[in-house]
Amino acid sequence: MERLLFASDYQEGAHPEIIKRLAETNFEKSAGYGLDSFSDAAREKIRAACAAPEAEIHFLAGGTQANAVVIGGLLRPYQGVIAAKTGHVATHEAGAIEYGGHKVLTVPEKDGKLSAGDVRACLAAYWQDENREHMVMPGMVYLSQPTEYGTLYSLSELTAIHAICADYRIPLYVDGARLAYALGCEKNDVSLPDLARLADVFYIGGTKCGALFGEAVVFPKPSTVPHFFTIVKQNGALLAKGRITGLQFDTLFTDGLYVRGGRAGIRAADRIREALLKKGYRLTFPSPTNQIFLTLDKKQLARLSEGIEMAFFEAPDEEHAIMRIATSWATSEEDVNELIARL
Amino acid sequence: MERLLFASDYQEGAHPEIIKRLAETNFEKSAGYGLDSFSDAAREKIRAACAAPEAEIHFLAGGTQANAVVIGGLLRPYQGVIAAKTGHVATHEAGAIEYGGHKVLTVPEKDGKLSAGDVRACLAAYWQDENREHMVMPGMVYLSQPTEYGTLYSLSELTAIHAICADYRIPLYVDGARLAYALGCEKNDVSLPDLARLADVFYIGGTKCGALFGEAVVFPKPSTVPHFFTIVKQNGALLAKGRITGLQFDTLFTDGLYVRGGRAGIRAADRIREALLKKGYRLTFPSPTNQIFLTLDKKQLARLSEGIEMAFFEAPDEEHAIMRIATSWATSEEDVNELIARL
Amino acid sequence: MERLLFASDYQEGAHPEIIKRLAETNFEKSAGYGLDSFSDAAREKIRAACAAPEAEIHFLAGGTQANAVVIGGLLRPYQGVIAAKTGHVATHEAGAIEYGGHKVLTVPEKDGKLSAGDVRACLAAYWQDENREHMVMPGMVYLSQPTEYGTLYSLSELTAIHAICADYRIPLYVDGARLAYALGCEKNDVSLPDLARLADVFYIGGTKCGALFGEAVVFPKPSTVPHFFTIVKQNGALLAKGRITGLQFDTLFTDGLYVRGGRAGIRAADRIREALLKKGYRLTFPSPTNQIFLTLDKKQLARLSEGIEMAFFEAPDEEHAIMRIATSWATSEEDVNELIARL
Amino acid sequence: MERLLFASDYQEGAHPEIIKRLAETNFEKSAGYGLDSFSDAAREKIRAACAAPEAEIHFLAGGTQANAVVIGGLLRPYQGVIAAKTGHVATHEAGAIEYGGHKVLTVPEKDGKLSAGDVRACLAAYWQDENREHMVMPGMVYLSQPTEYGTLYSLSELTAIHAICADYRIPLYVDGARLAYALGCEKNDVSLPDLARLADVFYIGGTKCGALFGEAVVFPKPSTVPHFFTIVKQNGALLAKGRITGLQFDTLFTDGLYVRGGRAGIRAADRIREALLKKGYRLTFPSPTNQIFLTLDKKQLARLSEGIEMAFFEAPDEEHAIMRIATSWATSEEDVNELIARL
Repeated sequence: MERLLFASDYQEGAHPEIIKRLAETNFEKSAGYGLDSFSDAAREKIRAACAAPEAEIHFLAGGTQANAVVIGGLLRPYQGVIAAKTGHVATHEAGAIEYGGHKVLTVPEKDGKLSAGDVRACLAAYWQDENREHMVMPGMVYLSQPTEYGTLYSLSELTAIHAICADYRIPLYVDGARLAYALGCEKNDVSLPDLARLADVFYIGGTKCGALFGEAVVFPKPSTVPHFFTIVKQNGALLAKGRITGLQFDTLFTDGLYVRGGRAGIRAADRIREALLKKGYRLTFPSPTNQIFLTLDKKQLARLSEGIEMAFFEAPDEEHAIMRIATSWATSEEDVNELIARL
Repeated sequence: MERLLFASDYQEGAHPEIIKRLAETNFEKSAGYGLDSFSDAAREKIRAACAAPEAEIHFLAGGTQANAVVIGGLLRPYQGVIAAKTGHVATHEAGAIEYGGHKVLTVPEKDGKLSAGDVRACLAAYWQDENREHMVMPGMVYLSQPTEYGTLYSLSELTAIHAICADYRIPLYVDGARLAYALGCEKNDVSLPDLARLADVFYIGGTKCGALFGEAVVFPKPSTVPHFFTIVKQNGALLAKGRITGLQFDTLFTDGLYVRGGRAGIRAADRIREALLKKGYRLTFPSPTNQIFLTLDKKQLARLSEGIEMAFFEAPDEEHAIMRIATSWATSEEDVNELIARL
Repeated sequence: MERLLFASDYQEGAHPEIIKRLAETNFEKSAGYGLDSFSDAAREKIRAACAAPEAEIHFLAGGTQANAVVIGGLLRPYQGVIAAKTGHVATHEAGAIEYGGHKVLTVPEKDGKLSAGDVRACLAAYWQDENREHMVMPGMVYLSQPTEYGTLYSLSELTAIHAICADYRIPLYVDGARLAYALGCEKNDVSLPDLARLADVFYIGGTKCGALFGEAVVFPKPSTVPHFFTIVKQNGALLAKGRITGLQFDTLFTDGLYVRGGRAGIRAADRIREALLKKGYRLTFPSPTNQIFLTLDKKQLARLSEGIEMAFFEAPDEEHAIMRIATSWATSEEDVNELIARL
Repeated sequence: MERLLFASDYQEGAHPEIIKRLAETNFEKSAGYGLDSFSDAAREKIRAACAAPEAEIHFLAGGTQANAVVIGGLLRPYQGVIAAKTGHVATHEAGAIEYGGHKVLTVPEKDGKLSAGDVRACLAAYWQDENREHMVMPGMVYLSQPTEYGTLYSLSELTAIHAICADYRIPLYVDGARLAYALGCEKNDVSLPDLARLADVFYIGGTKCGALFGEAVVFPKPSTVPHFFTIVKQNGALLAKGRITGLQFDTLFTDGLYVRGGRAGIRAADRIREALLKKGYRLTFPSPTNQIFLTLDKKQLARLSEGIEMAFFEAPDEEHAIMRIATSWATSEEDVNELIARL
């Protein structure tokens, strides 16, 4: 029995339309470094989708890179970034933020999410501390939509966090590595225009949402970070053939492909979730998106692993493992059927 | 009259074989982060081409990134990298090396090349200086093959520089952003196995040599830099879908496509060079590769610029400009004919 | 009523012997940068006191500086330092460690102390994590003796932590900003030779223990960090007149002055502690050294603050404050008497 | 024959008045971190001497530290600092500026001095370069008064450089490690108020000008760098007992002691210079301050070195050495007489 591969949402290539357009435009000549017409077209479509006509948009290659470049660009040396203890920048970026000189100021999380109260408490604690000049100043807030656990911030939650950032005059940054799976989810009530209104910067993930690679960093207000282009270059993040990311985002933002891909991933995940619950499995987090976390005992783990490749996430104790099943824009109905049959 | 676009060697997409294989393999599933079979196959082919069966190979996205990650991985904090005054790391990387904490120790160059004598002088000056513990220690040598000016190190030149590095027990790093145009050039006598023997690390450029993007960093001896994978990640340089770079290098190193692309670029450049000389133009550097630098007076510049887009390189004085014409694997015979007609 | 100043242990100048010797030697000429005979004499005395005849010793100006330089010198870029959540490097150094590129990997603490079990758990968690190459590698352990809360590691506790570090082949670093108050405390069973045996590097604090300023960084094994002198310089931490720190440590390590100063501070603190307990105050931590932490309600705080300047430490809740009373080598019996009278 | 020690200007302790006041105030209690009354008094006196009543002043421990902290505080990550090729930050700080992430953009020098023309050329070259977004932006100008070669900027030279900085809206920073020897020199026409008017930040050197250690960083306009206190702390440069530097600068700026010390050093140097010229020695640079550079042939070097310890500076060729004789506030008339006798 060949194992079904459900470990991650970056196992395939790209939406076929992207491949097709790469082929069609292959010998067109274009300017380098994102100054090409493909990138410009993509920017226009993203601005429209975000209802942010002035937005400044840069295309980077990956999520950790986007986080490091954006955070390094926004903060002064003595500032740190507030993030959930489970935030990607706090855990799985090999210290990229610290390598750039900044502390990740972790606050508690629930199901991977920051609460407005905890963010405010962290900021208040700093500003009320008589010794604060000997401490790292919280200079921005980082969160992911969806979170690392697949959960979603509601519009009211995000609005509350935005309000605190505004109170303290610090920027809010939203990591949208899997944003398509928020936008494509019925339970989501945060639209792209909401994000553009509430976040000072966010990125629209391509790598995990239908592109070969690439993330679109969106600053709703231009010149939020002066000379961001040079900062990108200095971080080794500027692609000579910017057209390749440009073309991919142009395609993703044509005819709603980006969100359609998200929806497909959600539909697959919803069917799997339903089957899991029916069979009595324990879902670790209330994720409505494309990532499903299961708390399995050793027997369950052994049995399921025979036929399904999942991703190991964490061992909460000696007897259990938390495993992840991830769907994507590319997950086929056949694979879902077969997975359900093997549960 | 539409202008002919000859400003750079990164104006098109990729070798059609790459696009074709991307399409064919698009829905195959693979592991992330370069642990996939495409990347493994590419590594095997590169090892064979380099006669370096133990080589450790990592695929990165771009040249500045490769330089920053490799140099940051090799050096201790108090060390700097020796480079030509005109080296890419010294000029056009927006301070990426310094951002990583290291000084670029520039030495004189001739036609973009380091001489063994100047490298030795730099090292000797440091080690003989009584105040050296207050100075930056030269910790490695960086050079490009071909250079930023399109010139080539001969095997004997590279061997001499290698010998000095060996004397001082510091690594030699070769930036091969345009390596195909060295390997495809008749005047070149430095083979990939030579590079693997003489350099402690080098990269085989993809972006400018037929790939959509991507550079293959080759350490002929494994574990030259322990935990290089994590260093790549920390620098935001690890691609989730490593298969995309893997597949591209697998294709480039199948049936000699990489070198064939280089040869095509050289053939085009040779024809243009011949025509330029015939018409009395002044070539700035003795480049035998795909980059041609012209020193033009204002009148020449104005006239040529009407029909040909070149890249501005430098203004040596008020009356002249140095311009670059670059060919590539993708340059068509028609475009070369038309360019020659417009000279 | 003039307030009694008990907020910190760095309120006075230096042991009068130090001032006297500064005056006596003022016009002697000496080499710069720690290559002088005062520094050499101090090194010899410290080596003898530590029973570490090969020790390499560098004199720096302050504690945060020592921590940043030592940690930056020991770690590779992808490594972080394990520390208690309450460790100085984790809280009150304004992000100096992160500024140097390294994450502080915090683990739980009890009364400011790491436990061997928690250190092992942190290391085991990393090395057992399948995703560890995407994470920060724990590369060393940092702890303070005494801790930020005035508590002490016992010899057996320190030996256990040392053993774990040895298992994982990572260095153990002991911050001795207030080391005199450990060495001068009857309850302490960790001697300087123990430290030199168990730690790969530690510093003997001068600033808070009788010097005008200065910390002696001791590597029991020479060349633990190659070119540490240059690392010190690069961090802006090399004093031109190294004689000034050399002479101070030479004096502190003559006739046991360093430990005598510590003992004086402890005696004063013991008297205050006794009085506090007698009067029913609540001591926050079981500190046997020169720092006394009190948990006060608002009324107590208001009353005590009238006559005594303490340091604000933390507000555990709305109704309470944790305040610090610190004694030192310089605390006079009169001040202690008067303080006790005002409790 | 005992050698006369003339290698540097940091061979003795401090002005006896400083030692005396350290003794007198030793048991006074004061707040930490520069918030004490000694530091405040010093600040007031420096403000008065600079005719800069609003100036923000911080006391650091050494010159390389001051340079790293100030430059790191002023620049954005993508910016570099313009300096003479021979500037201290470019040569003898072990890469401290690059360690902080910034490139030192070197320009030609004459006798250690920048010319306004070269500074303007460097700035113009950047801003006219079409590829400037791929390059390091010049973000400030660094110069030393006196220079590393003992030479002085005239008021008109400094005014011209200031004007260029103003044109390009970048700050001018003056390193005054040996400022007393400029202020105490008859040929100098740049006063402290001139410096405060022309520089955005400068430091008044203590270490080489009569203090045990310490440099006073002066920002004529407060909040030039917001949160500079925290930046100092983050760089490990904040002294717990700030009173020690405060008291020293308070003393140096009482009754003109700082300038008087400078004058004494100059008088000694002038006598030596006169004797050297009379005896036919060749002075390398036209230094009117306390550093005298001699170009000696091997025979001269051997003979002079027998009786006089000088500092080795550089070997211009195989047959010659450039050596430095330095006087200071502490140089005695007897030593000068004896040195002259031994020439």
